[in-house]
Amino acid sequence: MRLRGIFRILGLLICLFSATLLPPAVVAVIYEDGGGMAFMLAFAVSILLGFVVWYPNRHQTTDLKVRDGFLLTVLFWTVLGMVGFMPLWFAEELPLSVTDAVFESFSGLTTTGATVIQGIEHLPHSILFYRQQLQWLGGMGIIVLAVAILPMLGIGGMQLYRTEIPGPLKDAKLTPRIADTAKHLWYIYVALTAACAIAYKLAGMSWFDAIGHSFSTIAVGGFSTYDASMGYFDSSTINTICVVFLLLSSMNFAVHYASLTGRTARSYWNDPEVRAFLLIQLALVLIVFATVLLHNIFSDVGTAFNQAMFQAVSISTTAGFATTNFSAWPLFLPILLVFASFIGGCASSTAGGLKVVRVLLLFRQGVRELNRLVHPAGVYTVKLGQRILAPRVVEAVWGFFAAYALVFVVIMLGLLATGMDDLTAFSATAACLNNLGPGLGDVAANYSDIPDTAKWLLVIAMLFGRLEVFTILVLLTPTFWRS
Amino acid sequence: MRLRGIFRILGLLICLFSATLLPPAVVAVIYEDGGGMAFMLAFAVSILLGFVVWYPNRHQTTDLKVRDGFLLTVLFWTVLGMVGFMPLWFAEELPLSVTDAVFESFSGLTTTGATVIQGIEHLPHSILFYRQQLQWLGGMGIIVLAVAILPMLGIGGMQLYRTEIPGPLKDAKLTPRIADTAKHLWYIYVALTAACAIAYKLAGMSWFDAIGHSFSTIAVGGFSTYDASMGYFDSSTINTICVVFLLLSSMNFAVHYASLTGRTARSYWNDPEVRAFLLIQLALVLIVFATVLLHNIFSDVGTAFNQAMFQAVSISTTAGFATTNFSAWPLFLPILLVFASFIGGCASSTAGGLKVVRVLLLFRQGVRELNRLVHPAGVYTVKLGQRILAPRVVEAVWGFFAAYALVFVVIMLGLLATGMDDLTAFSATAACLNNLGPGLGDVAANYSDIPDTAKWLLVIAMLFGRLEVFTILVLLTPTFWRS
Ligand SMILES: [K+]
Ligand SMILES: [K+]
Repeated sequence: MRLRGIFRILGLLICLFSATLLPPAVVAVIYEDGGGMAFMLAFAVSILLGFVVWYPNRHQTTDLKVRDGFLLTVLFWTVLGMVGFMPLWFAEELPLSVTDAVFESFSGLTTTGATVIQGIEHLPHSILFYRQQLQWLGGMGIIVLAVAILPMLGIGGMQLYRTEIPGPLKDAKLTPRIADTAKHLWYIYVALTAACAIAYKLAGMSWFDAIGHSFSTIAVGGFSTYDASMGYFDSSTINTICVVFLLLSSMNFAVHYASLTGRTARSYWNDPEVRAFLLIQLALVLIVFATVLLHNIFSDVGTAFNQAMFQAVSISTTAGFATTNFSAWPLFLPILLVFASFIGGCASSTAGGLKVVRVLLLFRQGVRELNRLVHPAGVYTVKLGQRILAPRVVEAVWGFFAAYALVFVVIMLGLLATGMDDLTAFSATAACLNNLGPGLGDVAANYSDIPDTAKWLLVIAMLFGRLEVFTILVLLTPTFWRS
Repeated sequence: MRLRGIFRILGLLICLFSATLLPPAVVAVIYEDGGGMAFMLAFAVSILLGFVVWYPNRHQTTDLKVRDGFLLTVLFWTVLGMVGFMPLWFAEELPLSVTDAVFESFSGLTTTGATVIQGIEHLPHSILFYRQQLQWLGGMGIIVLAVAILPMLGIGGMQLYRTEIPGPLKDAKLTPRIADTAKHLWYIYVALTAACAIAYKLAGMSWFDAIGHSFSTIAVGGFSTYDASMGYFDSSTINTICVVFLLLSSMNFAVHYASLTGRTARSYWNDPEVRAFLLIQLALVLIVFATVLLHNIFSDVGTAFNQAMFQAVSISTTAGFATTNFSAWPLFLPILLVFASFIGGCASSTAGGLKVVRVLLLFRQGVRELNRLVHPAGVYTVKLGQRILAPRVVEAVWGFFAAYALVFVVIMLGLLATGMDDLTAFSATAACLNNLGPGLGDVAANYSDIPDTAKWLLVIAMLFGRLEVFTILVLLTPTFWRS
């Protein structure tokens, strides 16, 4: 382990992150909301912290190995969550406990979007902006993670797209090609955000709300500047804009890039994951629409369709925006959509869940097993598009599935042990592990009323989900620390 | 497909099964409970049905192929459940609807042990005996299934014990060696039942109760002749006897056979699955004991231990006997044990669940993935005991896991769609798919109050669980019916 080399980079990253505490301070000045001090103080502390971590290790420029990458990635997200909690805790207008501030910070950064705050609209503009910005930065982090970091570590859906032998990249340095790709995906990310903000503004939001909600939409985050979330605007146009941008943000950003460089929209339909994703979304919207019609939940068909579409897409892509008291719909629907959030969005998107490509592979592998039972002598392969996948890739996906299930069970049992009821425990675990946000039962509106122990468990769940489980699990193996 | 050859065997099996309707008739005569007519009528109908199915096809003696085996196995259990429902429906003392009688019959035969009957102790002895006998016969059926049928079809935990290339047995005929093994396992089954009955009698049960409960204990079934189940006897000795025989019945019967022929108890500890099973049971007993102590559920430590041990073993081995209102314990415990029932007992036992050997393999494969991430160039194998498992065996287990999860989600959503609450839907699905029996919420005591649609869905769940999911899923693939 090159601990000092890890600290050098960590210190630099903290300094970089501290710069993101300045825009909210600017917002405080613009709106004269008196919330600037908390951000200036947090900025000072975090740049000092970054410096203290970086300075003694500034000459440790030896290349890091794959193993160091695991530790750095986990430390990076953990430390950022701890740094990001500061302004929320410092802010006098927001009397949060340490636990609540940490929960809110991690929920923002991991783009989970679960909140412990009630009366959000009464907060200063600077804090509102900061929460939305946390999600947007988290989304940026996820794209780098998915495109550059996780493939280096041998984890993540992107490895399925590589033609070489699976496993970590041979060259453990961030190659120029990957850095270049990440940069282009960021351009797309920023462009999508701008388009989304303009669309929201044209549909009637203020600039402040439009920008804030575009941040949390493109990050598939789900934070809002109102308790009622998107429901505050009560606009089917805004709902539709949100759905369109959520679908775009839940697609593989590399496919966006391919379609832009190739100037053809066919890339979308040619990609087996995006195709499966769109078909799953379509099926969910139709099921939810049919069920709300059957139960006469809305008075007119148009509203029913708009609400069904919005809720189906918002929950299943793991955004978690709300328009209506969705958790009071017949229980079949909320639980169907929570189950759907386990599938989530595409790999290399800002959405959470297991990712469509993995579920697609598991399904194809299941079909292969059935075919093998009927024709034991037959040779069946698992394909993704035109490519036959190596057994080791398929094994890695299975391992991921089992690890996800194990983490789910352990955290849900932990929540039950705090005295939580089963619907709350189930949905909270799913909502945080899948980086979805709102749950059902006691956490349908927000997470303020659950025990502190439960909140810490859920912070761990968010990290497990966002870091694709394995990144953290690896740190818990003896093999990792040996030699 | 050799449909007529399948019908020939099916007819013979129905005739054979009809003979099992006579012992309850004898019980009716002994206890003069007036319940004999229902059984004589059911006997007449079923032997006639068997004859009608067999007679036109009696010359179809060509060997069946693997593919026919799938259909025959599923038809066999389905038809037996439909035949077995007759006496329950005919009996005047038991006013059951068709749905309820079918549910009770399948629940008995699949050794699930979920009941729709309230006031069980008021039923005629003949019906009580019949219910217990259904479970016992089901247990016998499971042993043949596990030892002889499923390995032929290429499904099931036993294939993990074979040194050859996995997949169906080359020779699709029931080889003399396998028939011989099955016979020996039946001897063990009968001997265990006798020992269990004698132990129950010595501990204070009547002969009728002792035999009846030995039937459902060795089958890991969970039916009782009292509404209060084992709690009726209120005896820590009886609880302990039940635990001992449940543990024995949940071990691989092939290991019993090996230890008997080798005259050494070391076979048990040498078997990796049995060892893992015993360690899991020990851990569960200790967790449950510690938690009931912490919550002061029982006044003295001795009772607390006895109850904790009984409940932990009864639920996690998928027996489902009750002594106390366990579903009212802190929710952490009931849900922990329901999760544990997904592991269940060993392969080739009468217990349900995914089976310990599969969970053990998934765990080892998960550890291998983690090791591979740390040392990408390392070669890691998945072992069971001293044997390295072929990738295809591991793949088959993953497929099983995913198929199990898929069936679980679909059936649970189906139950929710009937308007069931989430705890009931979750636990009922788990209890029926794992062949456990009692659930939580509305199905903690019995299944009488749930909608008919839900009961049918749960009958399907029981069959999926008992036939190891794949046997039924294969019938749903186009490949199976093609050519
Ligand atoms: K989210
Ligand atoms: K059972």
